[in-house]
Amino acid sequence: MLTIRRLDLADAGVLLAGARARADAIGVPMCIAITDESGQLIAFERMDGGKVTSATIAIDKAFTAAAARKATHEYGTASQPGAPAYGISSAIQGRLMVVGGGLPVLVGGEVVGGIGVSSGTPAQDQDVAQAGIDAFLAGQA
Amino acid sequence: MLTIRRLDLADAGVLLAGARARADAIGVPMCIAITDESGQLIAFERMDGGKVTSATIAIDKAFTAAAARKATHEYGTASQPGAPAYGISSAIQGRLMVVGGGLPVLVGGEVVGGIGVSSGTPAQDQDVAQAGIDAFLAGQA
Amino acid sequence: MLTIRRLDLADAGVLLAGARARADAIGVPMCIAITDESGQLIAFERMDGGKVTSATIAIDKAFTAAAARKATHEYGTASQPGAPAYGISSAIQGRLMVVGGGLPVLVGGEVVGGIGVSSGTPAQDQDVAQAGIDAFLAGQA
Amino acid sequence: MLTIRRLDLADAGVLLAGARARADAIGVPMCIAITDESGQLIAFERMDGGKVTSATIAIDKAFTAAAARKATHEYGTASQPGAPAYGISSAIQGRLMVVGGGLPVLVGGEVVGGIGVSSGTPAQDQDVAQAGIDAFLAGQA
Repeated sequence: MLTIRRLDLADAGVLLAGARARADAIGVPMCIAITDESGQLIAFERMDGGKVTSATIAIDKAFTAAAARKATHEYGTASQPGAPAYGISSAIQGRLMVVGGGLPVLVGGEVVGGIGVSSGTPAQDQDVAQAGIDAFLAGQA
Repeated sequence: MLTIRRLDLADAGVLLAGARARADAIGVPMCIAITDESGQLIAFERMDGGKVTSATIAIDKAFTAAAARKATHEYGTASQPGAPAYGISSAIQGRLMVVGGGLPVLVGGEVVGGIGVSSGTPAQDQDVAQAGIDAFLAGQA
Repeated sequence: MLTIRRLDLADAGVLLAGARARADAIGVPMCIAITDESGQLIAFERMDGGKVTSATIAIDKAFTAAAARKATHEYGTASQPGAPAYGISSAIQGRLMVVGGGLPVLVGGEVVGGIGVSSGTPAQDQDVAQAGIDAFLAGQA
Repeated sequence: MLTIRRLDLADAGVLLAGARARADAIGVPMCIAITDESGQLIAFERMDGGKVTSATIAIDKAFTAAAARKATHEYGTASQPGAPAYGISSAIQGRLMVVGGGLPVLVGGEVVGGIGVSSGTPAQDQDVAQAGIDAFLAGQA
C-alpha cells in the first residue's frame, strides 16, 4: 500500500493567491490552475482579462507538471527537433504541455501537486507560477 | 455589434463561497464550477473529498446551463425516453449535461454565467448550486 | 466511377435564408447549418441570440441527416429503449444526432445535402429546417 | 460584472463578404469562419472548391485569433523550434492554430471577434482574412 501526500484546497488557495498577486504586479491577467499530485484539478481562476484559450492550457500545464513530475519548460528543451523527447507535445491528445508555465509543487522532495499559468509570454507564465509556489513554501516553513 | 454582460472573477468568488457554505452545511464535499455566459470556465474548486470524476461533470454542467441557457435538470426531464430531446445527453462529445446540478445565472432576465456542482446526489448538487446563486443575488440586491 | 450531385454555396444560401425567415417568423433565433451529401459543412449561421451549445448541435444534425440519409427525428424513434437502434446517439463521439431538427435535402430522390437547426424545441428546430428545404425546392421548380 | 462587445451576425456577414470578394479576386476558393470574441462560431462559408479539411482549420484559426487575441501567424513565429512557445500548436486538442490566416477583429482596441481563412497558402489565407477585416472596418468608419 502507498501513502500519498497531496495539496488540499486550502493549499491550492495559497498557491492561487501567490500567483494572482504576481500577475497583478506585472499587469498581466492570467489563467491559473492547481492540480493534485495525479494531475487532477483542485482549483482554477481566470482573472478578468485572462484568455479563453488559456483556461485549457493552464489546466494542462498543471496536469503535465504534476503528473509527469517535470516543469513544462524542461519538456520544451527536451522536445526540440533532434532531442530525445521530440514529438511529445502532441501526446495525451495534446495535453502534454512543453511550453513554460507549468511547475510541479514539491514538499520534502515529493511532488504533491502542480501549478499551471497561461495568458502571458511563457516566461511571464513561469514567473507567476513560481510566485505561487514561493507563497506556498513560505507558508510551509 | 452586440453588448453582453458577464460575470467577473469577483462575482464567481461569491457564487463559489455560497455554494461551498451550503456543501459544508449538508456535509457533502463538492466540485463547483463557474462559467461565463458563453460557458467558458471562470473559476473552479474541488473541495477536499470531492470526486475526481466530478471535476469534469461540474464544469460541463455549468457550461450547459450557461451556453444553452437552461437548468440541467430541465434537460433531464426533456430527454427522458419518449420525450422530444431524448438522446441530447451525448451531444457535444457528452458535454451536454442532463443531470441536475447545473443552473444558469440570470441578472435582469439575461444569462450572465452558469454554475455547476457535482459529487452528491443530483438533488444535493442542484441545492448547492442554488445556494451559490442565492448568495450572488443577495449581493446584487 | 461515381458521379455525385451536391449542394453548392448558392444553394446553401437559399436554404439558410428560408430557415432564417421562418426562425424570424416564430421569434426563435437559431443556429442553422448546411452540409453537403457527405455531411461536410458548407455554411453556418448563428442568429443573434442563438445558443452557443447549438452551434455544434446544428452542425451535427445536418451531418447526421446528410451522411446517414435520414431525418434526425426518425433516429429518435428508432433509438428509443427496446428499439433496434437503441444507443446509436452516442456513436461517432456523440455526433450521431437523434433529436429532431436535422433533415436530408433531396433532389430527384437523391440526397444532395443536409440542414440542421438548433436553439428551439426539437419541433421548432424541425419546422425551421423544413422551411429551408421548402425555400430551396421552390427555387428548383 | 463585465460588459463585453461582440460581433453580431450582420457584422459577420460583412466580414464574410469582404473575404469572399478577395478570394474571388485571387482565384482561390476558401473556407471562411467568423467567431465572436470568445472564439464561438457565428458564421461560416465553404466556397465552391474550398477544401474539406479547411473547414475545421478555418474555424480553429478564427477561434485562436479571437480567444487568444493574437494573429495565428504570430504564433507561427513564436512557436518555431527554439522559440518560447514551441509546441503550442498541439494545445487544446490541436485547435490552437499557428499557421497564418487567423486574425482578431478589433474595435476601439478591444477584440470583438475573429476571422479564419483556409484553402490557399498561409499568405493567401491571411490576405483574404485581412480583406474581410478591411471591409468590416470600412463599414464602421
